[in-house]
Amino acid sequence: MLSYKAPITDMKFLFEDVFNYYDHYKQYPEFEEATPDLVDAIFQECAKFCENELLPINQSGDKEGCTFDNGKVTTPTGFKEAYQKYVDGGWQSLSHPVEHGGQGLPASLGMVKSEMMGTANWSWAMYPGLSHGAMDTVQLHGTEEQKQLYLTKLTEGTWTGTMCLTEPQCGTDLGQVKTKAELNDDGTFSISGTKIFISAGEHDLTENIVHIVLARLPNAPKGTRGISLFIVPKMQVDEQGNIGESNNVVCGSIEDKMGIKGSATAVLNFDGAKGVLIGKENKGLECMFTFMNTARVGTALQGICAAELAYQNSLIYAKERLSMRSLTGAKKPELVADPIIVHPDVRKMLMTQKAITEGGRAMIYYTAKIVDDIQMLKDDKERRKADNRLGFITPILKAFLTELGSESANHGLQIFGGHGFIKEWGMEQIVRDTRIATLYEGTTGIQALDLLGRKILLNRGKYLKHFTMEILSFCKDKSMISSNPHKRQMNQFIWPLSKAVAGWQKNTLSLSLKAKKNRDVVGSASVDYLMYSGYIVMAYFWAQMAQAAYEKLATDVENRDFYRAKIKTAEFYFQRMLPRTKSLATTMMADPKTLMQLDEELLSFL
Amino acid sequence: MLSYKAPITDMKFLFEDVFNYYDHYKQYPEFEEATPDLVDAIFQECAKFCENELLPINQSGDKEGCTFDNGKVTTPTGFKEAYQKYVDGGWQSLSHPVEHGGQGLPASLGMVKSEMMGTANWSWAMYPGLSHGAMDTVQLHGTEEQKQLYLTKLTEGTWTGTMCLTEPQCGTDLGQVKTKAELNDDGTFSISGTKIFISAGEHDLTENIVHIVLARLPNAPKGTRGISLFIVPKMQVDEQGNIGESNNVVCGSIEDKMGIKGSATAVLNFDGAKGVLIGKENKGLECMFTFMNTARVGTALQGICAAELAYQNSLIYAKERLSMRSLTGAKKPELVADPIIVHPDVRKMLMTQKAITEGGRAMIYYTAKIVDDIQMLKDDKERRKADNRLGFITPILKAFLTELGSESANHGLQIFGGHGFIKEWGMEQIVRDTRIATLYEGTTGIQALDLLGRKILLNRGKYLKHFTMEILSFCKDKSMISSNPHKRQMNQFIWPLSKAVAGWQKNTLSLSLKAKKNRDVVGSASVDYLMYSGYIVMAYFWAQMAQAAYEKLATDVENRDFYRAKIKTAEFYFQRMLPRTKSLATTMMADPKTLMQLDEELLSFL
Repeated sequence: MLSYKAPITDMKFLFEDVFNYYDHYKQYPEFEEATPDLVDAIFQECAKFCENELLPINQSGDKEGCTFDNGKVTTPTGFKEAYQKYVDGGWQSLSHPVEHGGQGLPASLGMVKSEMMGTANWSWAMYPGLSHGAMDTVQLHGTEEQKQLYLTKLTEGTWTGTMCLTEPQCGTDLGQVKTKAELNDDGTFSISGTKIFISAGEHDLTENIVHIVLARLPNAPKGTRGISLFIVPKMQVDEQGNIGESNNVVCGSIEDKMGIKGSATAVLNFDGAKGVLIGKENKGLECMFTFMNTARVGTALQGICAAELAYQNSLIYAKERLSMRSLTGAKKPELVADPIIVHPDVRKMLMTQKAITEGGRAMIYYTAKIVDDIQMLKDDKERRKADNRLGFITPILKAFLTELGSESANHGLQIFGGHGFIKEWGMEQIVRDTRIATLYEGTTGIQALDLLGRKILLNRGKYLKHFTMEILSFCKDKSMISSNPHKRQMNQFIWPLSKAVAGWQKNTLSLSLKAKKNRDVVGSASVDYLMYSGYIVMAYFWAQMAQAAYEKLATDVENRDFYRAKIKTAEFYFQRMLPRTKSLATTMMADPKTLMQLDEELLSFL
Repeated sequence: MLSYKAPITDMKFLFEDVFNYYDHYKQYPEFEEATPDLVDAIFQECAKFCENELLPINQSGDKEGCTFDNGKVTTPTGFKEAYQKYVDGGWQSLSHPVEHGGQGLPASLGMVKSEMMGTANWSWAMYPGLSHGAMDTVQLHGTEEQKQLYLTKLTEGTWTGTMCLTEPQCGTDLGQVKTKAELNDDGTFSISGTKIFISAGEHDLTENIVHIVLARLPNAPKGTRGISLFIVPKMQVDEQGNIGESNNVVCGSIEDKMGIKGSATAVLNFDGAKGVLIGKENKGLECMFTFMNTARVGTALQGICAAELAYQNSLIYAKERLSMRSLTGAKKPELVADPIIVHPDVRKMLMTQKAITEGGRAMIYYTAKIVDDIQMLKDDKERRKADNRLGFITPILKAFLTELGSESANHGLQIFGGHGFIKEWGMEQIVRDTRIATLYEGTTGIQALDLLGRKILLNRGKYLKHFTMEILSFCKDKSMISSNPHKRQMNQFIWPLSKAVAGWQKNTLSLSLKAKKNRDVVGSASVDYLMYSGYIVMAYFWAQMAQAAYEKLATDVENRDFYRAKIKTAEFYFQRMLPRTKSLATTMMADPKTLMQLDEELLSFL
């Protein structure tokens, strides 16, 4: 019963009017093909694929789930066929390098594709999605031979890839990894150990799966500095890429989960499986970190996907479901009752979903430009700068947008009333599916520590300063003292945004002083601080969208309603969502002792 | 894998030290048996039943669910046996009148029983739980003959009952009810129509089910003033109570739901089923309203049940799971990593769960005393006063505690990291099971309208005034100018509580003035206003618990750690949760136009 139409109008607004994507693409000769015409065509074709092929197998995939039998996993009906169409359409290769069979289009376009696919069917999108991590690893750290052997197949989509990090005793704390790698006479390694929570770890979509595995060499240093990275294919591969015999990687079971049931989460038992080292010995975690930000932004996307899908469907329901009369008098007296969209509280939930979806999309598309830059910039210093910008914004995107994705999905369910709890409508599935997003790729708590502890305090606020300078410069540019023709209207956004940024700076400084005296301040403040930061960052993007909308309204005769709606949603955001910072600013400053003073034995008296 | 121990220490603290339950019981001769000894024995026995019989079939009940075959519903394995033990133990009759086979104990004790049962297994507890609604209806509105025929069997638990309100086209808006009732020659009625979402509407636990059905007589006035109430048994019953033939009430299907899968949610097709009128013609909704508050408090309980179960289990996990080191240095250097409870953010989630659970329990137990009063007070005026107190607090309890129950369940899941998403641990089930609580018995939005629109504005703030006077009188009693020996320590609670209450009064007045100009203010502010009110109400109960704990610490040599933990949790609540009012106080005051100005057609451009 779920419906989905790709929000192409909004996507184009961001590409053309807010972020000037075509000027951005023109900077790089490699992107000369990424013209407005081609991009439009890609948007349209991708939307068609997602709406017609992926959406119809979303709810059925949840109902059917993956089945496990004696080491083999069967994906839900239709998943294999959709995957084949995806490969045939060349979608997997879209934004990968030409040398290994890619189309060489920008990563940012790949992000838009991922958004559409992930909204239509997140579970399905996990299979090609996980491959990107493996591809990036081989691309960045593999030898030319490894690239020839694995990257080409992965880029085509003939094979898929996985990332095998987690073990039963550790997820976040990878220093505890126990999986062993022992050198064989032929220079390969024998990998033995158990990996869990391996998304797309086993399935029937492709003839082979390329596992990227964290393991420990004999006598490697303890902890995170003794971990190396290996390529371990499910089926052995000869030098020509022909598939040989099975490689002692056995799927022991798949998890029975709350959601994303169409995505197989495998327990993989490596029993002397043959692998090759990728990157340097004991540098496995560093190799992983090189593209961890991109992977996390890819997970942030899940928040937006859930928010969009929930919003589209609850909006339809809110217009159709008749219940009670408006408090200001009947709006549809000819009907037995008014549609529930007349009720302010239903509107509040819808507007919240809209603000989250569109604000979050803007945050992602802004960040996607930085991802393009990192891949394209030739100058080391420039690239490092871009990398630091990405590193700063990533934990905010990942944690804030996935938390808000859950909120939006829950509003969607709530708008349906009791029907939201019934599977048939699909709304509860969105809540279940997106609940994983605040857990994997680093929980919200881990992202928050990364933001406050590493990205801010460890760097003495440098990257925060760069980012707040960018916002303040925008504020100045659009403010009453500027030549901005829309400065009067923009005042309602510029003033509270400037004030919020000033508070952000002040509060961060204050936290950094406190943290010097007591390290527990960091963990005690971190999640509230991250959410607080997220609301301010999203306000910046709502202000940018409002400015762009005013500009278009002044010149454009088309889509005027769209621009007006943008501005009114920005008003909603500033009056109804940005004030959430007030409570967070208070609670994040509270003394850590309120958390730590109670001895753990006194937390319960049963 | 879920574990549960009834928190009897906390329950007794509330009964004895905070709310003086035994003085309360002594007011009523009917409650003379409710001595500390008997109450303790009931707590112990009930805990045993819940821990040993109900908990073990909680996760298996979710996995197996109810099965439907040709009109028959089979409950999950073990449900029927547990129900028989429950009936044999006399639990169903605990707090029902002696005249019809009850034990005549206070309703408040029934509430404690419901809490334990609902925490151990909410799905199972739905079956006896729904009976209480039917019992209250027959008790309050039935003829003596109806009571003899139905109430005795319901009180024994030999039969169960349901409430049949919702239809496909309406849930909240009961004026749209279409089910028809036509008078037969023998004075009975033929009921025809479809009811949906009927909890315990069909099952295999008892030989008969007594449906209480809202239906419309021919020529009844339109809307809510034309609805009457009927008793419609699943199996016909002769005058001696013997079961005769089937009564044309057919279960058409059961819903496939997000959670509470062990509880059958039935579609019931009434096809000329024989029923009797209960209460007066066209007064059906009024009859229902007489005990709606109690039913809603019973649903509020689900928030606490979810919070408690999630807290108990995440606390165990947080002490066992080893990951990373404390930021202030290794706490368990002998282990491979520290248990995650050392991390402030994990603590924050645990303390939030603890504050919700214990604060919510205090709110419920306070309210349960009022429920006792309403049932026992002979004086009409006094009873009406108690009823109005209950009416004021009920929507806050229902919406605020069920929303916070979901929050606590989600923290519990989050503490488990990726494992929280896996069914085996049971944490995701708590999230799914409790998600219904903000929907049924009136959604959060409906409770919020009831609070602000009816209970406050319609009554010109009278009941709010009574309640805030009670809080302020407590504040005065315990403040620096009083003879309270603990006034110095209590200052940290009394001052912010008084300030919060002053804000509550001021903001309510301000909203009432705005609402006079624009009725949309009510719906626009309502949910934020309810949550805002909830945090202040909960602060009042945390302050009371802190005061009681200080008193006990001054006199008692036992349980000192328990009282200290109480006070520290109160400190946590005041510093980390009460400040949530800051944002809510801002957003609830925002202009309704931020919600309403966008034409509904402009909410989407697809």
